[in-house]
Amino acid sequence: MTRERRHSRRREETETISPEVAKITQPIHKYPILELLNPEAVQTIHEKSLEVLRDIGIAFLDDPEAQAILTAHGVTVRDQIAYFDPDLIMEYVGKAPAQFTQLARNPANNVQIGGNALTFAPVYGPPFVHDLERGRREATLADFHNFVKLAYQSPYLHHSGGTIVEPTDEPVPTRHLDMVFAHIKYSDKAFMGSVTSGLNAEDSVRMAEILFGAEKIREMPALVSLINASSPRRFDDRMLGSMKVYAHARQAMLISPFVLSGAMSPVTAAATVVQMNAETLAGIAFTQMINPGCPVIYGSFQATIDLQNGSPTFGTPEAQIALAMSAQMARFYNLPFRSGGMFTSSKIPDAQSAYESVLAMLPAINSRTNFILHAAGWLEGGLVAGYEKFVLDCEVLGMYHKYLEGVDLSDEAFAMDSIREVPPGGHHLGTPHTMRHFRTAFYRAELFDANSAEQWREMGSLDSAQRANAKYKKLLRQYEAPALDEGVEEALKDFMARRKRELR
Amino acid sequence: MTRERRHSRRREETETISPEVAKITQPIHKYPILELLNPEAVQTIHEKSLEVLRDIGIAFLDDPEAQAILTAHGVTVRDQIAYFDPDLIMEYVGKAPAQFTQLARNPANNVQIGGNALTFAPVYGPPFVHDLERGRREATLADFHNFVKLAYQSPYLHHSGGTIVEPTDEPVPTRHLDMVFAHIKYSDKAFMGSVTSGLNAEDSVRMAEILFGAEKIREMPALVSLINASSPRRFDDRMLGSMKVYAHARQAMLISPFVLSGAMSPVTAAATVVQMNAETLAGIAFTQMINPGCPVIYGSFQATIDLQNGSPTFGTPEAQIALAMSAQMARFYNLPFRSGGMFTSSKIPDAQSAYESVLAMLPAINSRTNFILHAAGWLEGGLVAGYEKFVLDCEVLGMYHKYLEGVDLSDEAFAMDSIREVPPGGHHLGTPHTMRHFRTAFYRAELFDANSAEQWREMGSLDSAQRANAKYKKLLRQYEAPALDEGVEEALKDFMARRKRELR
Repeated sequence: MTRERRHSRRREETETISPEVAKITQPIHKYPILELLNPEAVQTIHEKSLEVLRDIGIAFLDDPEAQAILTAHGVTVRDQIAYFDPDLIMEYVGKAPAQFTQLARNPANNVQIGGNALTFAPVYGPPFVHDLERGRREATLADFHNFVKLAYQSPYLHHSGGTIVEPTDEPVPTRHLDMVFAHIKYSDKAFMGSVTSGLNAEDSVRMAEILFGAEKIREMPALVSLINASSPRRFDDRMLGSMKVYAHARQAMLISPFVLSGAMSPVTAAATVVQMNAETLAGIAFTQMINPGCPVIYGSFQATIDLQNGSPTFGTPEAQIALAMSAQMARFYNLPFRSGGMFTSSKIPDAQSAYESVLAMLPAINSRTNFILHAAGWLEGGLVAGYEKFVLDCEVLGMYHKYLEGVDLSDEAFAMDSIREVPPGGHHLGTPHTMRHFRTAFYRAELFDANSAEQWREMGSLDSAQRANAKYKKLLRQYEAPALDEGVEEALKDFMARRKRELR
Repeated sequence: MTRERRHSRRREETETISPEVAKITQPIHKYPILELLNPEAVQTIHEKSLEVLRDIGIAFLDDPEAQAILTAHGVTVRDQIAYFDPDLIMEYVGKAPAQFTQLARNPANNVQIGGNALTFAPVYGPPFVHDLERGRREATLADFHNFVKLAYQSPYLHHSGGTIVEPTDEPVPTRHLDMVFAHIKYSDKAFMGSVTSGLNAEDSVRMAEILFGAEKIREMPALVSLINASSPRRFDDRMLGSMKVYAHARQAMLISPFVLSGAMSPVTAAATVVQMNAETLAGIAFTQMINPGCPVIYGSFQATIDLQNGSPTFGTPEAQIALAMSAQMARFYNLPFRSGGMFTSSKIPDAQSAYESVLAMLPAINSRTNFILHAAGWLEGGLVAGYEKFVLDCEVLGMYHKYLEGVDLSDEAFAMDSIREVPPGGHHLGTPHTMRHFRTAFYRAELFDANSAEQWREMGSLDSAQRANAKYKKLLRQYEAPALDEGVEEALKDFMARRKRELR
């Protein structure tokens, strides 16, 4: 293709925006919040969490520097366990901002995190992928690229995520470089940094600096990185190393216990939320001791286990309740809240996967959640990223966008003239009101077949996963990378090459 | 089998209650209601509905007796269209009770309809059935029996429903007798009467009288029957005939428009809810003119259409919003509310069917709905009852039961000793607290596979629909009919035989 043709093609694209790459718009929560707890119950959970923090403590393991930071700020550390005075912890938690904006390479894709804004981010962490033709297999860097491209093309994902899959064909010491580079190269949405070690976090910050400039990312974070407490009551040295780096660089962190109730916490929702709340507050306070005002997200990842065989279970009623409770705690502390996701234990994109996913999302949609990681693609308890599941989930995210738009109560919406004009038993298909609105009236989920049984059979009797298979392949075929400044790309590649030499 | 063996088998059953036939318990809504409208908006919808009732009118078609009843109660009827004075309609709507109890053959299965109680009833109306082996085919009386048996065995369905499928192999004039008899014979849960004509409604009442006694069913209704407005703004003679019979016999009615927005109402939620509200209020007022205090349910069935091909679409965001709005209107009038259902356009129990079903249920669960028809088994826009879909949906109903139980905030639930006892990074699998609760802690959805990928492959790599296929067949194999008094059965059979002679 000549340079001229390339140019004209690009112009065509910007002039006729395909619905697949329409500018993303974050939903804004407008509805009342469904609160399962009354204010007294919120206060009780708060007080019991303070009791855990003061008397039972949270381990900050194998990181003398982290322990020294805690001690220097008035925390008692004994046998690696930190005991927090209630006033002290609330003082530091109070320093974290209620909301912040994360930079994206395309400024139109900057995301607001907190307040009434909602951010959907793709699945994070699976070492395997699944598609209908090839089944389940180890994830590769090519899969990583594919999922970044799919997330880039969805108008309903506001974020490129982080370890969208684990690129198992790349060496462990250097694969974080390939992942961060892929987010920058193949998308222009906001993304997450590496948390596999303090050094890898450093590399993530350096690459964000190359992209945005060192000063700019101190004003507004370029990275949101996932810090998991290894529950119960523990942060390990890997996470502490990353926390220190990101806090010093004023990069945002999602501080989130990962709890399967019955294993990492008691089976009951009340106890689980108390323990998770204590863990999250300890992590947040630690970040604020290092760098007051550093943006954080109050996180909650909780599922249950099948107590007959120990397997994690998702979308369960107990998890729905715990999520709604955690959301209330985050609001109590006036912090952005992360939870929810299209979770399932299913190995394949079948009915189970869909039932569980939407059930898991139900309280997140009702509870004014701000950041939903794993909003598309999750299968098999998070071990697998599913190609078909990814695009199916995106349909549901589109439906949530429409649902969250609110209720139109304008005179035009009441359409009294139209009600008057159509006789009893008549129809509204051709009325002026219908003609004015039919293009935008209803969200259209193209993967959800509404045809008659006859039409559906003529089209091959495909199930939704088979339609999703065609759709994700079409998206990958039609993908075109957003232009990246050549100097920036060169600098990033040079940095990676140097680091790969040093790390191998 | 000898009489003695039968007897001992029956005793064994009552002594060891299988989880499948455990006594049903209706969920009680305890959480706050998610209200999308503020009180002013509710008032606006109310006033616009009164405007429709007063100025635009509702047709009461082809039934001079019904029109005479309206006229006698002060309604203006012109060209078959009834125009209701606002005070008059509110006076009659105000006569309907806020809640009532419906009789079941087994008094333990009587259902409370209204207040904070929730009733799940199975799918209603499909002329076709679907299962994995035989695909889609016309429904027969044998299918009707099968679905009644499945509903009877689910502890999460509180009601046997009505036309659970259309028994197309029975003659149209008499099949209502076979349906009512099947509900009585094969289940002991509450059920619905026929609405295909006034005469068929009479037969339903007669059979309820044989079962319960003529006086008893005047005190407490034995039938809840589905009266659909044929929207826009119309009740036809078939429905009016049934309404008159049931109102005179003081049997409960579910007064419900059936609206696909964009076809039977304007595309917007505000206009749709105004029109539906006017239709429902007109129907309810009519029942109260005939028999003040007759129990009714304020109903709302609304879906959208695909404006490209006219197909109905389900679980859409627009329908979710309209449902939540209608629920607020029903509460405004202090009436029991019916809406929701496991709706889908999908032809098969695939991911689409599950996504749409749970999305359609989301606002019903949040909005203190009292009666959810179509809570299990719906496929293909209601044209098909799916065997596998039915048992899959029941799993989700079980999860809702657990979700709606509320939050346990007892000291035992906070489990502070257990949090204290388990060291950082330890586990709660064997703690005394876990041992005390592990049997009941989590709802277990047996059709939702939480096994590892390896275990799942060893068990045949089945998807959830395939597991559901085995489950429904097992339920039908293990089904045993609840004992029915021989005299009652004889009397019902005599009645049916006579009516079949008369009607053929």
